Amino acid sequence: MDPFRSLLLLSSLFSVAAPHSILQISPGSRRHGDRSAWKGDELYCDSWRFSVETNDAGIWTQVPERCVGFVREYMTGERYASDCGMVSNNSMSFAGGVKIAGDGKDAWIFDIDETLLSNLPYYAAHGFGSEVFDETAYNEWANLADAPAIPASLMLYNVLKRLKFKLILLTGRTEVQRNATAKNLLLAGYSNWERLILRGIDDVGKPALVYKSHKRAELEGEGYRIHGNSVELCSCDSVALSYGNRRQFSSLWA
Amino acid sequence: MDPFRSLLLLSSLFSVAAPHSILQISPGSRRHGDRSAWKGDELYCDSWRFSVETNDAGIWTQVPERCVGFVREYMTGERYASDCGMVSNNSMSFAGGVKIAGDGKDAWIFDIDETLLSNLPYYAAHGFGSEVFDETAYNEWANLADAPAIPASLMLYNVLKRLKFKLILLTGRTEVQRNATAKNLLLAGYSNWERLILRGIDDVGKPALVYKSHKRAELEGEGYRIHGNSVELCSCDSVALSYGNRRQFSSLWA
Repeated sequence: MDPFRSLLLLSSLFSVAAPHSILQISPGSRRHGDRSAWKGDELYCDSWRFSVETNDAGIWTQVPERCVGFVREYMTGERYASDCGMVSNNSMSFAGGVKIAGDGKDAWIFDIDETLLSNLPYYAAHGFGSEVFDETAYNEWANLADAPAIPASLMLYNVLKRLKFKLILLTGRTEVQRNATAKNLLLAGYSNWERLILRGIDDVGKPALVYKSHKRAELEGEGYRIHGNSVELCSCDSVALSYGNRRQFSSLWA
Repeated sequence: MDPFRSLLLLSSLFSVAAPHSILQISPGSRRHGDRSAWKGDELYCDSWRFSVETNDAGIWTQVPERCVGFVREYMTGERYASDCGMVSNNSMSFAGGVKIAGDGKDAWIFDIDETLLSNLPYYAAHGFGSEVFDETAYNEWANLADAPAIPASLMLYNVLKRLKFKLILLTGRTEVQRNATAKNLLLAGYSNWERLILRGIDDVGKPALVYKSHKRAELEGEGYRIHGNSVELCSCDSVALSYGNRRQFSSLWA
């Protein structure tokens, strides 16, 4: 894969000057109605999004049909990028105040999907979360190693690296996806992580909260001081949320 | 105090048909600029609000000056009411599926400020969170027992009561505020709570998370099954948040 294609895709996804250009990738995603059709649902859908993000919506599997247009606008317009930028800036500001001991144990954890990498192209081609989640198709997409970086995350990642944090990637992906994941991360611009932790055979089926808490405890047992934990850095993962990967932690542990 | 005054105030605060009527209470709150002045900041302020609500903003004390107009619009327009309604509906839906044992131990916990009661009139008169928090003035306001109910919360409260949940109120207010608090709750339309728990002398100064976790553990020790915990039910407490009372728990424990 051409890394410049990735950058180009990325800039088309997040450009404020040309929002909605994601639609050029997948004209099929237009089928859920135009702006005028969903505009009347905006208040409802914004509240729905909020209740999801704050874990108040309970168990759900698909974006409500009436909110598909809203989610598309949110994700492909300037709001998602703005929300990502805000959290990234807050994280950088916090990180700048952390004293680095120099013993190589000051760590920052990153999730991967919808944190370092965006699966928006996949979701754009699959109804923006309105379709029943298809694990086979999703894994095929992941194996392409073609997911773009989220620009705000890439900036945060690089700043933390310059600040001498050890960057530990902790993902719900499984070991069989290690090669594709590492390849994708490199192509998207990430490099020099300290460790890439994926689910081993024993971890499959564990709830994310249990699995990740366990891994963090192991890291602390090795002497790491975990200063930050960026999970779904960008605020609305309505799209990713249809995958059941809800926000679990603050990105800052102040 | 005339309870009807409270109801009237309440309807003027949350009516979708006549948003912004809160401003009639305190013309002084207009001083932070008109809509056109803050409109350009809307994207930034919406992201700021989101980072606050998801506990990603770190420690902060005042609403940024550029976002005061945004917060005013959010709180006094239809968005806050809509967000409250969504969480209330989700909570009711969840509660309806809970099997009540009939032994009087099925409980639901409510916070008070910015959950059952709204302090919006106070904040509207004090710059919508842009002023440094004045504990003395705030306590004087609380002692007036004049805070209106949040309509969506009142509806949830009454539905839970009919469903035979034991309603336990757990607040960061102190015992010296017990009488004013109970009076305010009754005047705002709440009744028949099982217990009203306030901070005792030993609890003053404890972080809310510690104090409330301890009280919940005590309740469970008494045999209560806590099915729900409504804290800052309504999504944006940007106003209340200037008081440092950030969202800590999901309103649903599914």
